[in-house]
Amino acid sequence: MPGLTIGDTVPNLELDSTHGKIRIHDFVGDTYVILFSHPGDFTPVCTTELAAMAGYAKEFDKRGVKLLGISCDDVQSHKDWIKDIEAYKPGNRVTYPIMADPSREAIKQLNMVDPDEKDSNGGHLPSRALHIVGPDKKVKLSFLYPSCVGRNMDEVVRAVDALQTAAKHAVATPVNWKPGERVVIPPGVSDDEAKEKFPQGFDTADLPSGKGYLRFTKVG
Amino acid sequence: MPGLTIGDTVPNLELDSTHGKIRIHDFVGDTYVILFSHPGDFTPVCTTELAAMAGYAKEFDKRGVKLLGISCDDVQSHKDWIKDIEAYKPGNRVTYPIMADPSREAIKQLNMVDPDEKDSNGGHLPSRALHIVGPDKKVKLSFLYPSCVGRNMDEVVRAVDALQTAAKHAVATPVNWKPGERVVIPPGVSDDEAKEKFPQGFDTADLPSGKGYLRFTKVG
Repeated sequence: MPGLTIGDTVPNLELDSTHGKIRIHDFVGDTYVILFSHPGDFTPVCTTELAAMAGYAKEFDKRGVKLLGISCDDVQSHKDWIKDIEAYKPGNRVTYPIMADPSREAIKQLNMVDPDEKDSNGGHLPSRALHIVGPDKKVKLSFLYPSCVGRNMDEVVRAVDALQTAAKHAVATPVNWKPGERVVIPPGVSDDEAKEKFPQGFDTADLPSGKGYLRFTKVG
Repeated sequence: MPGLTIGDTVPNLELDSTHGKIRIHDFVGDTYVILFSHPGDFTPVCTTELAAMAGYAKEFDKRGVKLLGISCDDVQSHKDWIKDIEAYKPGNRVTYPIMADPSREAIKQLNMVDPDEKDSNGGHLPSRALHIVGPDKKVKLSFLYPSCVGRNMDEVVRAVDALQTAAKHAVATPVNWKPGERVVIPPGVSDDEAKEKFPQGFDTADLPSGKGYLRFTKVG
C-alpha cells in the first residue's frame, strides 16, 4: 500500500466537503490539524466516533487544532448522516468539515485504506486512520485502526498535548505522560545546556550504566 | 517511505535478538504479537517505555499476546541497557526479546523509520512504531509516534482487548470502548441474522434516517 507515514508532507489534495471545496494545505494553514477517515456514513462505529469528535471539538479548539474528516461517501450523504450523528449525542454539533472521496484516490494517498474491507462493488473502503498534521504540513503522529475497532479520542487529545508540549519546550514526554507530569530532556542537550535551558532544575535518574541520560524536569 | 500498513503481512525477517535469532513469522506462530520499535538504547523516553512494557507483560500474557522489541542498536547494547530499564522500575523484568537491526533494513521494511531523527553518522533511527500483528501474520492496528512522544500502553492494552473481542464475537467496538461495555453489530448482519447470532438481544438506536444501523449488544 502507499505509505504516507510520520515525517511525510501530507499531499496537498483538493476535495469537496460539507464546507465546500477544501485544499488540504490551505486548510492546515499555520495550525495543527487532525485528519481522520471513517469507513462509511450510516455505519455504527463511525457514528459513535464522529459524535465523540463533535463532543471533543471544544477541547481541540482550545489547543488550536482543527478537525477534518474524510470518507468515500459523497457530500450529500455526509450532510444527511450528520443529522443522525447529532441526534445520537444531542448537544454535540458537527462543526468540522467532512471531505468526500468517491474516487478513492485521496484515501490511497493518505494511507487510509483498510485492505480487508470492500464495498458492495468491490471498491476500497477507508480504515479508521487519524493523522495529526503539524503547521509544517507534515504528519507528526498516526493512528491506524481497522474498521472493527473505534478509536480512543482521549488518547488523541493526550497525543496533541504531548506533541505541542514537546515542540514548545524542546522536551520529550515519557510513556503514559499526562499534562502536568514531568517531561524528559532530550539526549542531544548536555547537562550544562540543560542547566541554562531549564533554570527550574532537573533530576537525573541513577541507573547502573551511570550515563545520566534520563533527566526529568517540569515545564509550565 | 516504505508503507507497511494495516492489512499487510509483516515481512518474515530474521534478526538477532537478546533471545537469539528470531524469524518473525515463527515468533508470531498462532498468537498475537506486539512488534514495537524504539529510537535508541540508553535514551530517556525509550527507557520509560520499555520499563512500562515490562510492567504490562503479565497483562499481555493473560491475553496470549507476545512482545517483540526492535531498534538499530546491537544485542550487547540491548543487554547492557536492560540493566538500566530494570533498575528504573524495580520488579519489572524485561522478559521479552529485543531485536537488533544495525543495518537499518528491517525498520524500513517495517515502517518504523522516524525521518526527522538521525544518528551521529546520519543513519536513520526508528520512530516509536507499534504494530499489533495477528495470528495470520497481518498488521491489525498500528501506532506511529515520533521520538518526542512516549506511547500510551493503556491504549495498547485497550486496542488488544477490542481487536480480540471483535474477532471472537464478530462485532465491532465503538469509540472509547472499554471491556465490559456494549459493542456494536456490524452493518453486514441483517436484523434477522442478529437475532440468531445474539440471542441476548440488541438495542437499535432511534436515529432520524430510520436506517436502523446502530445496534448495540453485550458479549461475554
